[in-house]
Amino acid sequence: MVTGLKIAVCQMLVREDPAENLAHAAELVRHAAEQQAEVVVLPEMFTIPYSLYAMKAHAFSLPGTVVPELAAWARENRVLLVAGSLPEQDESGRYYNTNLVFSPEGEQLSRYRKTHLFDIDLAGRVSFQESAVLSAGNTLSVIHYGDWTLSVLICYDARFPELFRLAVDKGAQLICIPASFAKVTGEMHWELTMRCRAVDHQVFVAAASTARNPENDFQPWGHSLIADPWGKVLAQAETEETILYAELDPQVLIQARQELPLLKHRRSALYELLPHLEIIEASCSRSMQ
Amino acid sequence: MVTGLKIAVCQMLVREDPAENLAHAAELVRHAAEQQAEVVVLPEMFTIPYSLYAMKAHAFSLPGTVVPELAAWARENRVLLVAGSLPEQDESGRYYNTNLVFSPEGEQLSRYRKTHLFDIDLAGRVSFQESAVLSAGNTLSVIHYGDWTLSVLICYDARFPELFRLAVDKGAQLICIPASFAKVTGEMHWELTMRCRAVDHQVFVAAASTARNPENDFQPWGHSLIADPWGKVLAQAETEETILYAELDPQVLIQARQELPLLKHRRSALYELLPHLEIIEASCSRSMQ
Repeated sequence: MVTGLKIAVCQMLVREDPAENLAHAAELVRHAAEQQAEVVVLPEMFTIPYSLYAMKAHAFSLPGTVVPELAAWARENRVLLVAGSLPEQDESGRYYNTNLVFSPEGEQLSRYRKTHLFDIDLAGRVSFQESAVLSAGNTLSVIHYGDWTLSVLICYDARFPELFRLAVDKGAQLICIPASFAKVTGEMHWELTMRCRAVDHQVFVAAASTARNPENDFQPWGHSLIADPWGKVLAQAETEETILYAELDPQVLIQARQELPLLKHRRSALYELLPHLEIIEASCSRSMQ
Repeated sequence: MVTGLKIAVCQMLVREDPAENLAHAAELVRHAAEQQAEVVVLPEMFTIPYSLYAMKAHAFSLPGTVVPELAAWARENRVLLVAGSLPEQDESGRYYNTNLVFSPEGEQLSRYRKTHLFDIDLAGRVSFQESAVLSAGNTLSVIHYGDWTLSVLICYDARFPELFRLAVDKGAQLICIPASFAKVTGEMHWELTMRCRAVDHQVFVAAASTARNPENDFQPWGHSLIADPWGKVLAQAETEETILYAELDPQVLIQARQELPLLKHRRSALYELLPHLEIIEASCSRSMQ
């Protein structure tokens, strides 16, 4: 039987300087670990104000110095670190919106590059074209953390139920979603989408947004949340910086899947979702076991 | 360019006597047509109080006398009739939860049998096993009504995004959902699910529940609703009998799909949804064109 998991979702305030943001993220991870969080989730692009310019100007080559640094946060604090996302530039010069996950021993478990790029043009309200700079990823990561299994999607990926299906087919019980929804789409769809994914796919959802910073161009919706498989919101932020905590109770997931067996009732003989992408699995022990 | 569509969603009060319920449904359809509705949606199992016993006791053989009767409602009122659902018994003795759609000329356009049977057991709150009596359908219906395309799903089907995907792949802009969610699941998930489906699949959703009748064993959630592709609720009922109306504006759908191009941004090369079920298409002219 799986045991409960204390998770921390950091709605981090991002400022202009990447070095300052890295140092601040390290503080938040340490603070969360002091509160006995086992899993710590940082938001999307937590090293830069969200902009195409900054993604290029401050992209990391991996591993570089950043991977050892993030690994040290995980190891020193004995947490599973879902390190939000970083702007990454690969050897060929392409940019990605990239999540890394580290074990409590400081081992890099996965690298996930955002699959769905956010290209939107809401007349007179918000316009953004990630694809002008970023390339899209082609893999999915599934991490077995002791008796828990989790996956990571990034922001706009959450709009697409298919990746949740594929993650759940691999055993995911928790989907971590580093994000920075825009204010206008966030107000319309953030909570709706995150809660509905939790219900449909019978998973916990931990969605970590950046905090709103009036000094930046891009204003995120904020409202980071943790939802259970019934769609119940266990914790939710406002727009300022905060760390949310929740104890994920495996009995709630087991009960949802038994009493309302949506996963079992899928009629896969009538509609089959074929993964044409590589699903990369990794595993590590739980730090507190 | 498609033109606006006035839709009526009948949250009908269902009593014990099937003949009385049929007569009452006919009244509601006539009333909706008098209000210039072009499409009229009735709820799930509108001829009987929702129970396994009544499904068997009052099942229809099709066409029987009921198909000509429903056809006449459509023809006499010049509406596209989405005739909720009926308990059906086929020649081999199997029972189904079956939707029929009729053109404004009174032609039967489709027969759709509920694909996902509602088997639930929420400890001490609600327990129901449709599969004890019903067989599940294996087809999907897509109806081209002039310049609009719609599909029909029944109640628990709405829990499964895959059928929405397949309908939208065939051009659906409107999903009609005759339903009778239970109170406990309705309170948790009815509006969340219906709105999120509208957003994810960029369609209008018209969900018609039965009204609550304290004299019946099963108490539906009610709260019938019509949502637009942004997830905005255009009309919503409480628990009593009522008819909801909305004018579905094609520009809203076009705008949603252009400004927030979720359908276009699906990465079908990475995850492919294969329909193994038969998708039956039918078409008819719009009555008012």
